[in-house]
Amino acid sequence: MALAPSPLAPKAFPALPPVPGLRLATAATGLRYRGRDDLALFELAPGSTVAGVFTRNQVAGHPILWGRRILGGGRARALIVNAGNANVMIGPAGDVAVEAEAAAVAKLLGCRADEVFVGSTGVIGEPLPVGRIIEALPAMVRELRPDGWRAAAEAIRTTDTFAKGSAATARIGGAAVTIAGIAKGSGMIQPDMATMLAYLVTDAALPAAWLQALLERVNQRSFCAITVDSDSSTSDMLLAFATGQAEHPPPQGPDDPAFAEFALAFEQVAVDLAQQVVRDGEGATKLIEIRVAGAKDDASARRIGLSIANSPLVKTAIAGEDANWGRIAMAVGKAGEPVEVAALAIALGGVAVARGGRRVDGLDEAPVAAHLKGQEILIEVGVGDGPGEAKVWTCDLTHAYIDINASYRS
Amino acid sequence: MALAPSPLAPKAFPALPPVPGLRLATAATGLRYRGRDDLALFELAPGSTVAGVFTRNQVAGHPILWGRRILGGGRARALIVNAGNANVMIGPAGDVAVEAEAAAVAKLLGCRADEVFVGSTGVIGEPLPVGRIIEALPAMVRELRPDGWRAAAEAIRTTDTFAKGSAATARIGGAAVTIAGIAKGSGMIQPDMATMLAYLVTDAALPAAWLQALLERVNQRSFCAITVDSDSSTSDMLLAFATGQAEHPPPQGPDDPAFAEFALAFEQVAVDLAQQVVRDGEGATKLIEIRVAGAKDDASARRIGLSIANSPLVKTAIAGEDANWGRIAMAVGKAGEPVEVAALAIALGGVAVARGGRRVDGLDEAPVAAHLKGQEILIEVGVGDGPGEAKVWTCDLTHAYIDINASYRS
Repeated sequence: MALAPSPLAPKAFPALPPVPGLRLATAATGLRYRGRDDLALFELAPGSTVAGVFTRNQVAGHPILWGRRILGGGRARALIVNAGNANVMIGPAGDVAVEAEAAAVAKLLGCRADEVFVGSTGVIGEPLPVGRIIEALPAMVRELRPDGWRAAAEAIRTTDTFAKGSAATARIGGAAVTIAGIAKGSGMIQPDMATMLAYLVTDAALPAAWLQALLERVNQRSFCAITVDSDSSTSDMLLAFATGQAEHPPPQGPDDPAFAEFALAFEQVAVDLAQQVVRDGEGATKLIEIRVAGAKDDASARRIGLSIANSPLVKTAIAGEDANWGRIAMAVGKAGEPVEVAALAIALGGVAVARGGRRVDGLDEAPVAAHLKGQEILIEVGVGDGPGEAKVWTCDLTHAYIDINASYRS
Repeated sequence: MALAPSPLAPKAFPALPPVPGLRLATAATGLRYRGRDDLALFELAPGSTVAGVFTRNQVAGHPILWGRRILGGGRARALIVNAGNANVMIGPAGDVAVEAEAAAVAKLLGCRADEVFVGSTGVIGEPLPVGRIIEALPAMVRELRPDGWRAAAEAIRTTDTFAKGSAATARIGGAAVTIAGIAKGSGMIQPDMATMLAYLVTDAALPAAWLQALLERVNQRSFCAITVDSDSSTSDMLLAFATGQAEHPPPQGPDDPAFAEFALAFEQVAVDLAQQVVRDGEGATKLIEIRVAGAKDDASARRIGLSIANSPLVKTAIAGEDANWGRIAMAVGKAGEPVEVAALAIALGGVAVARGGRRVDGLDEAPVAAHLKGQEILIEVGVGDGPGEAKVWTCDLTHAYIDINASYRS
């Protein structure tokens, strides 16, 4: 696990502001890792609302099953997350462990168990030593503090090489509100809704249904637009909490224009966290942005973008700094989406390499080659004259991906 | 391209028998490779029938477009195949090149151009120097001979590390018939109908429509059941020719029991060639057979099998000889197919590792670890009590895949 930070890592963990109504604590249970925290507790003020999306993997983890069950209430008072063991495919003991965690947190914080969300990430299929988590809770509750973001982001890491956080502020009806969040994820990343784990907290006052609608829309443009290795985790979970501690005028409805700035800031935080997951893609040396235009609709554009982003041949070509655009064309064509070959256009780093379904005449590959030597790669594809467009982010596929994954569990 | 033969390669190229009604020739055009043949010509006796399936990649190569256009005639007199340039995304010049090839072969053999199939494999998007192919044809026609199988299999290689051939015999109404074929393919392999290129020839007498029905059924259980890297080529093409030179009683219909033995032998050759493509998967060190049972139907089972076979995390775990069955469970779950988690069972090398949705109690990993050190890996998955089952073949994902593909075009 002692991997060097990704070359694409941000220079430093950002200064995440405290969010009124949120307190955090971390602890080391030793259930898999030594010498580091592996457990994070979020305490939310009474009255906090919650929205969430969970993996669509049919083999969903026990914490996912619990989250789906309690989300309907729209209320949250706490979140407890451990790293190192995913609590997936344990049988009935897995559900027992989750409910024991929730009950213990609820007892200590004086709330109901169905207001306590649970997250777990790590190895699949190994029984979770839940006693160690429960034993760590009383001290964590004593140590809850508003400024624990970075420690929490560190505690939920598995193969991540850096901790991921992001924050933004916005005004609602003249009042300042804060949005901050953390995420973890590096491999088994093609969120079918969210990355492995991502948690956003705001002090805005939002009914759960409105927060849910916003979260689902933003999710499509952030976590659902990234892939590292095409493998959708059993444990993907994206939760957003609104503590309601900011003193803004009550919104008039979900489409109240007073919320527009907030929604943009919310998306900015989600996209930033999603991109950080890609920047920490296992073995990544290049961040690749894929823009697809001219598709039937946005969903079609996103599927074409993901087909390119998941192609091992495209990802290895980028790793090799090779302007092999034929592989991009192949990946466009295999997506199963309508493509006008005679209109197919591909640009790398802003330089057109194919247009009208064939290579650009007299193409000078030098500027393309120079672009490919950089760390941030831009692939633009036009597939017709439809209105659909999408942005997708991925990373290259390198030897380090294989080094990490041929030896993870051993 | 001077790669050592795959460790999974057969010991030797098989002794492929001449097929009455077929003659072969090869030549070196130098259009990409030096010091080796890169062009193969098949001449078929008058009256030969043909069946074919082609890539469903939307960016299909120019030879694919030609093949789709002429297949309806059901008649074939020749096939010309080059390696090194795929003739894909060339614009109108690509179609002109294909038709020039077909016309030149037709002229030399005295048949119609629409009885000449064309295959190309190699780099996408580079103009095909078709003049070199046409210039080589007269000498090839003079050198046509019945025993040219191995030379043809060698000539159509690109990144293949060994030539691929297979043959079988069967009896139809007491008369012996022969089936022989060759294939090429190593990367960009998840045939959406066939591997990059595969050609089967028999001397049986079969109407084109019956041959087509047989080919489509067998294709699902052979070339459509393999994947190396999930990337479906623009140039996939599987053709079967029947020269009608064997002297068997005329069949009574497509379901004539006299054809049962022939159909089995035909499938055996197709499966053997498909498995040889996987054995030559770029960087492969292990051949992985995945058997899925208990699915809704066979198609659902095949999709679950391919989801496992395409998971980079499963493929790297096998490369690392790691019994990480949680990744197999993840890949089952992400396939988008119905799965009964409480009934999910996984076995490695015949040893049950998970059953009833969780790890087998007291599992002794030693026999599993021993199995994973071998070259042929068996993964068995039960996903419920449905009637659907499938077999899928793939290979592991290793450093050599990245070495090959980060530098292929350069």
